[in-house]
Amino acid sequence: MKTYLECYPCFLKQALSAARRAEGTEAQQLSVIRRVMKILNKLDASAIPPAIARLVHHAVREEISCPDPYREAKRKSTEQALALLPELRKLIDDSQDPMDTAIRLAIAGNIMDLGVMEDFGDLDQTIRRVLKQPFAIDHTEDLRKLLETSDHLLYLADNTGETVFDRALIERINIPVIYAVKGSPVLNDATEQDAIEAGLHEVATILSNGSDVPGTLLELCSTEFRDAFKNAPVIIAKGQGNYESLSDAVSKVFCLLQVKCPVIGEDIGAPTGSIICRRSYP
Amino acid sequence: MKTYLECYPCFLKQALSAARRAEGTEAQQLSVIRRVMKILNKLDASAIPPAIARLVHHAVREEISCPDPYREAKRKSTEQALALLPELRKLIDDSQDPMDTAIRLAIAGNIMDLGVMEDFGDLDQTIRRVLKQPFAIDHTEDLRKLLETSDHLLYLADNTGETVFDRALIERINIPVIYAVKGSPVLNDATEQDAIEAGLHEVATILSNGSDVPGTLLELCSTEFRDAFKNAPVIIAKGQGNYESLSDAVSKVFCLLQVKCPVIGEDIGAPTGSIICRRSYP
Repeated sequence: MKTYLECYPCFLKQALSAARRAEGTEAQQLSVIRRVMKILNKLDASAIPPAIARLVHHAVREEISCPDPYREAKRKSTEQALALLPELRKLIDDSQDPMDTAIRLAIAGNIMDLGVMEDFGDLDQTIRRVLKQPFAIDHTEDLRKLLETSDHLLYLADNTGETVFDRALIERINIPVIYAVKGSPVLNDATEQDAIEAGLHEVATILSNGSDVPGTLLELCSTEFRDAFKNAPVIIAKGQGNYESLSDAVSKVFCLLQVKCPVIGEDIGAPTGSIICRRSYP
Repeated sequence: MKTYLECYPCFLKQALSAARRAEGTEAQQLSVIRRVMKILNKLDASAIPPAIARLVHHAVREEISCPDPYREAKRKSTEQALALLPELRKLIDDSQDPMDTAIRLAIAGNIMDLGVMEDFGDLDQTIRRVLKQPFAIDHTEDLRKLLETSDHLLYLADNTGETVFDRALIERINIPVIYAVKGSPVLNDATEQDAIEAGLHEVATILSNGSDVPGTLLELCSTEFRDAFKNAPVIIAKGQGNYESLSDAVSKVFCLLQVKCPVIGEDIGAPTGSIICRRSYP
């Protein structure tokens, strides 16, 4: 997805939020904002949002000498989501169509995004909404068929905490799963440590993608990850960052997300608040 | 009021909004954003928001060669408010305390602000709310006393359309009123033309302040206006821009506004949605 002009103020807002989470002084926060404006001023107009967000968060971490501004928020998110895991499993077990419920819950978990808002509100309310809500784009049938005929699944993680919702879905998937996480911290995206804290290593093989892009830019990923991407017969890509990077990817990629910003809504063709299971080139 | 770091993304958002109202091409919109980031990067940290907003809107008008991007929006706002004028007068006439109602309506009209949001929503709903809502800061008694003992009032206008609500208040004031407007277009702030279209010349002497600041920076105003400011025994200053510029002014200034952004809310000490009649140094 291209970078829209609306993204520019949003990058500044995100930088300020991250700088405050990193406990930067007022002067450091101003330095971050100025540095981000310089980055934005030099941008190639074709740069996609996750590539820019990577530079923005790099500036925050460097300016404030804080390797992981979202560490504490991520720990809390995982704790909060783990407390819900028994309930998520019960919702899936008790439902008429457990796979549909598990996919919906994985999408519900995508609300745990600290890039768009300062907090993600009431999780229970989101779960209830997403369990009932019609899909704005629904390629779940294709996804379910492909999961039945594939020998493994590559699952691209998004936010920490959301990982636990992914775990509940993965427990329902009968083929081996590679769970790909970020190579190093960026925003509240899950790293290997975050995924292990959420217990993903118990249900999947965790694979670092070797990059700190809040999304998936193959050219910045490790060879190992690129091979896994190439060899996967089916891929689930979670969240807005992965949609922004993979919206035009090969047809084995299914983006599972909630639309949380109007710009993505316009690009994908569904309003804010929508739930999406979108196959590239269905 | 100082410029908070939260204002930076907001300036970019406002610039983009203005560039689109000016019907700039995508390339022109990007040029505007880049130019505004350069302005923001060179700012003195002590610059107050209306001084920055002036530069931002100057960049938009120049980059897109459009002298008044808000012309059409302003025309519509005046038309919409004029249609309400008979109702405003009736609300005042029928009320137990006509002056209180007139002051409240003047504050209700302050919602017609295109700097914060793309549109200002339902006017009737705002009027109903503001007529009942308790003041978050209430120096109306001081204001009313001063209006009784003063020989004239200087009234600093804010948005176009809001002018009509000001007119309804001015009709209730028994001393001569000087209605000060912007010297040239900026945002949807009222100029002389806008004030005349709203009929203010029928109830007050219209005075240009000689500046294009969306607020009142005395050092950028005409000598004539500065004299009027100095000689006025009492001053009503409408809206956020005037609060940002005059929050620490002399005690004869009464800021009448609705709090429409959380940054101003924090500065003034009242949440978004509050109604304010605030005397500087009561």
